[in-house]
Amino acid sequence: VIDYPPAIRRLIQAFRQLPSVGPRSAERFALHLLGTDPHAAETLGQTILETRKAVRPCRACGFFAESELCPICENPQRDSTLACIVAHPAEVLAIEKSGAFRGRYFVLGGLLSPLDGVGPEELRLDRCFAELESRGVTEVILGLGADVGGETTGLYLAGEIKKRGWTVTRLATGIAVGGDLEFVDSVTLGRAITDRKSL
Amino acid sequence: VIDYPPAIRRLIQAFRQLPSVGPRSAERFALHLLGTDPHAAETLGQTILETRKAVRPCRACGFFAESELCPICENPQRDSTLACIVAHPAEVLAIEKSGAFRGRYFVLGGLLSPLDGVGPEELRLDRCFAELESRGVTEVILGLGADVGGETTGLYLAGEIKKRGWTVTRLATGIAVGGDLEFVDSVTLGRAITDRKSL
Repeated sequence: VIDYPPAIRRLIQAFRQLPSVGPRSAERFALHLLGTDPHAAETLGQTILETRKAVRPCRACGFFAESELCPICENPQRDSTLACIVAHPAEVLAIEKSGAFRGRYFVLGGLLSPLDGVGPEELRLDRCFAELESRGVTEVILGLGADVGGETTGLYLAGEIKKRGWTVTRLATGIAVGGDLEFVDSVTLGRAITDRKSL
Repeated sequence: VIDYPPAIRRLIQAFRQLPSVGPRSAERFALHLLGTDPHAAETLGQTILETRKAVRPCRACGFFAESELCPICENPQRDSTLACIVAHPAEVLAIEKSGAFRGRYFVLGGLLSPLDGVGPEELRLDRCFAELESRGVTEVILGLGADVGGETTGLYLAGEIKKRGWTVTRLATGIAVGGDLEFVDSVTLGRAITDRKSL
């Protein structure tokens, strides 16, 4: 049976490595790049290679940077004594969009997951604490998700942070602003009642 | 407000050019490539560039080829007097999978669409007929979809083919094999009744 030439099959295979891309989408991506516009493939291929070369982790916090430091760590207006630890770079952007945080970040690059063999060494938490120490932090906010991985990692980090005499806080849990009570899961609702605020 | 570095924003923009890729998917693709595996981006970028260089249209039929001719046109066992005209390369594979066709193809690269300014010149139909002539075809099957574009293009091609004294046929329309009658649209069902076969 005739199939696509080997080069196209390799391309389809390469696209399948992207998150949530199945065989049909990968085939459509490949055919699109081989289709009408002769520059489409070159543009995408070059951009991928150039971006990978241009972008590196910020030496101080691990967020994306195009030089030694990211724009946040380079900004002298940011409060170096206040740190927020997050799991992934995308979460830095989410918190920045809120406009509610004026400190600096540390991106772990993942969460503790003992069952997958990801312990404190694999996350290189010693590097994290050395960095926070060098900044002279006084408070560390755990900007982690309220799921199992986030809770596990937060518990471990909180212990280590307290050992060093720094204040440790976590993001408040509760109902979403503008959310309908009917659709809030019962655990979240339970926490929101426990953590209720006086008016 | 802090955003991704320019290089990452360019990469997200490049991914958005792929079919059905929205801003969220494009962002996930970009972050994936900048994530844990340092080779993922290089592999995908290189594969895109190499595939674009390695693959060209078959000189005879327009299907994908890695040399002058595609494997189908190179195969002396294929019947050169029987041609099947299709709109896109992917349709060659679909027909090959059926195992029911032993002739050779011609890939138009699109369909006539007068409203979008795609006429016989834009599809370079003169090249199509010159090629079929050089093969000495006696029958041309229109392997086009049963939608508006397919019907329009088929009508035009049928006239040109008849002018040249070749037999012209089209794919049979009717209910799908294994399909449930309940879900067949009424136009298809109407055609299937008109085109009924005696047993």
